[in-house]
Amino acid sequence: MDMASIIGYIAGALTTIAFVPQVIKIWKTKSTKDISLTMFIVFCFGIFLWMIYGIMLHSFPVIIANATGLVLGLLIIIFKIKYK
Amino acid sequence: MDMASIIGYIAGALTTIAFVPQVIKIWKTKSTKDISLTMFIVFCFGIFLWMIYGIMLHSFPVIIANATGLVLGLLIIIFKIKYK
Repeated sequence: MDMASIIGYIAGALTTIAFVPQVIKIWKTKSTKDISLTMFIVFCFGIFLWMIYGIMLHSFPVIIANATGLVLGLLIIIFKIKYK
Repeated sequence: MDMASIIGYIAGALTTIAFVPQVIKIWKTKSTKDISLTMFIVFCFGIFLWMIYGIMLHSFPVIIANATGLVLGLLIIIFKIKYK
């Protein structure tokens, strides 16, 4: 694998797993007051399109990274609605 | 431009501008209690690597989207440190 691809994979992994600490934080505090619902709705819609893009390009890493990101993003949206 | 590229551009635009409402929200409320600092540090590091990836691939859209995202992400980190 070339250097650019390795950096791309690490970048994709980081921008996806980044949402895990936010999910854990909300899970523990049950508080989402400072989180922007608009941010996560727009972000999830964007991630969904990235997933479609990955499907069209038959790129498994793009599909899996964005599918995971979408689950985490939707979880934050559900938390945001549940814990007002 | 092909359909996949158009979807990719829209996806990139959405996942980048998504951070604007979060920045505005913090700017207005001066409150960041519920926001995970770890999330934004990991996310910014990931976005930085995406930018490097874009530079290595000479992909202007990847560079510009991630440079913008990095500025917004760093702004949220600064806010998070400033408004505890």
